[in-house]
Amino acid sequence: MSTLESIVHGAAQVQRRAIAKAITLLESTRADHRAQGDELLTALLPYTGKAFRLGISGVPGVGKSTFIEVLGLYLIEQGHRVAVLTIDPSSTVSGGSILGDKTRMEKLSVHERAYIRPSPSSGTLGGVAEKTREAMLVCEAAGYDVVIVETVGVGQSETAVANMTDMFVLMQLPNAGDDLQAIKKGVMELADLVIINKADIDADAAMRAEAQITSAMRLFGLHGHPDHAHHDKKLWHPQVIQLSALHNKGVDAFWAAVTQFRNLQTANGKLSERRRHQSLSWMWERIDAGLKQAFRHDPAVSALLPTLVEQVESGRLPASTAARNLLAAQSERAQAAIK
Amino acid sequence: MSTLESIVHGAAQVQRRAIAKAITLLESTRADHRAQGDELLTALLPYTGKAFRLGISGVPGVGKSTFIEVLGLYLIEQGHRVAVLTIDPSSTVSGGSILGDKTRMEKLSVHERAYIRPSPSSGTLGGVAEKTREAMLVCEAAGYDVVIVETVGVGQSETAVANMTDMFVLMQLPNAGDDLQAIKKGVMELADLVIINKADIDADAAMRAEAQITSAMRLFGLHGHPDHAHHDKKLWHPQVIQLSALHNKGVDAFWAAVTQFRNLQTANGKLSERRRHQSLSWMWERIDAGLKQAFRHDPAVSALLPTLVEQVESGRLPASTAARNLLAAQSERAQAAIK
Repeated sequence: MSTLESIVHGAAQVQRRAIAKAITLLESTRADHRAQGDELLTALLPYTGKAFRLGISGVPGVGKSTFIEVLGLYLIEQGHRVAVLTIDPSSTVSGGSILGDKTRMEKLSVHERAYIRPSPSSGTLGGVAEKTREAMLVCEAAGYDVVIVETVGVGQSETAVANMTDMFVLMQLPNAGDDLQAIKKGVMELADLVIINKADIDADAAMRAEAQITSAMRLFGLHGHPDHAHHDKKLWHPQVIQLSALHNKGVDAFWAAVTQFRNLQTANGKLSERRRHQSLSWMWERIDAGLKQAFRHDPAVSALLPTLVEQVESGRLPASTAARNLLAAQSERAQAAIK
Repeated sequence: MSTLESIVHGAAQVQRRAIAKAITLLESTRADHRAQGDELLTALLPYTGKAFRLGISGVPGVGKSTFIEVLGLYLIEQGHRVAVLTIDPSSTVSGGSILGDKTRMEKLSVHERAYIRPSPSSGTLGGVAEKTREAMLVCEAAGYDVVIVETVGVGQSETAVANMTDMFVLMQLPNAGDDLQAIKKGVMELADLVIINKADIDADAAMRAEAQITSAMRLFGLHGHPDHAHHDKKLWHPQVIQLSALHNKGVDAFWAAVTQFRNLQTANGKLSERRRHQSLSWMWERIDAGLKQAFRHDPAVSALLPTLVEQVESGRLPASTAARNLLAAQSERAQAAIK
């Protein structure tokens, strides 16, 4: 059986090995692996797109692992197959990981209907996000129908996760300071749903947090389309849900909201629109990254850069002139090679 | 007299004409003008950098024109020469302008110690910001020692203004909704000082707004360096000031705060650090823009793009593969030309 066939049609053990092999191939930086990976991915593509892609974010300590384990087991009980992928910005910088994948989700990780893949541990956030996105497609082709992409609330990783999922869920503690941080970083705006976890610890604080977050989200929602934001039943309005993952309370209400979201977004066409938009932005993002890399590795640019940087820093050369000179150096080198 | 000499040493009328001529040259998109502009700018550079660069932002209706006119006249009375430049994102899109430059600041615009330049009315925000930045250098070389760059709170223009000035001031109305919008868009974080204008209309609301904004800014300030944020006298802590531009109240207190900021930032080295950092980021931003432009105008890319976009949108080609194919097409064309 080819890797493709093993992924799409293999028996449980064969499939797991094939998935791991495919993801390893896609994570490789060797050019020949990359070419094989591209080929495999293109062949897998017709089998992808049927899963629901759920993004989950929250600061360390909010209870993401506990929640995802409880949710995963609940979904498996309902007949789903669940893949969990991680984007951990801390692992890309230090090689270590805030999320500490190996010891987490003990029950879910050994379940045969679940697949858990830790964060790729090197590269830029853009590179890690690309690999996670591709791993997601492999899992979809293998028939996992709920793919959860989780991230810790650090840096730009929330945006990366929101940009590759159908629904972005933000987990919060019943605590006002957190909200301001989320508002500040523009994460609240990305959220289709906010979970207040550990709501059982302080019921009053949880109620206050719910009211606060609801009113903040309403304000964001109103901005730009005041007339119909709260009336149009065909549009999703971000929700806030209290739950306690540790005591398995509220998980069914959460999944009911997710299902409602999915049905609404499918019916009004927003789900496919979001995926089309995500694919195109992803393409342009990778192009930008590639252009920058080629520029920085260009020998003419490398030769000129230190002098120009020094002149710009010391105020002897306008920044825009330096930029034009460097761009000209790169293209003149190509021109000179032609002659 | 050369344009350079007229700008730096010319009598009032000669100088004004030379400034206008230089800025027109810098705003031109013709390649020969651009080359002349680069040359002029490099020659002017030794005469720049002595002005204080003040960024001012606020939504339409907050009273920016009234405030800048009052402030400008106050500064002229103190012996300063004041240039006012504008970045208006609405004018770059529609050719129209939210700020409606011509009828604004009637007294200031006719004063011989003031120079007011409306927003360039075409191009991307990046292009307009570049031209404004260059116009700022021309005004500095001409001896304007306070350069005010104002913008309306729309899109990314606040970031552009904060990135080219020594101090960024956000104007607010005594109204809580505004604050949340500013927090949401991450503008509050950029502000070195927040003005609550029209404070005389509702004193209670103004006090509430001041308390609210102060506590929000304190939270932002604390984030990351909790130990010394409020104790280190060598560091600037963002301030909130109530004033009424219309009744000319609070302008002196505002300028006292600006002076305190400038002295502190000069003494602790943050001002020159900020300018060095701004110049380098500006260089990289223009390089990115140039790379993207060259890519989009590449004939091999243009030929391939529509097909690949369609395949990515319809889910038949992975976005990352499409990106790699397009990048390869651009560089293969260069390679082929070499052979």
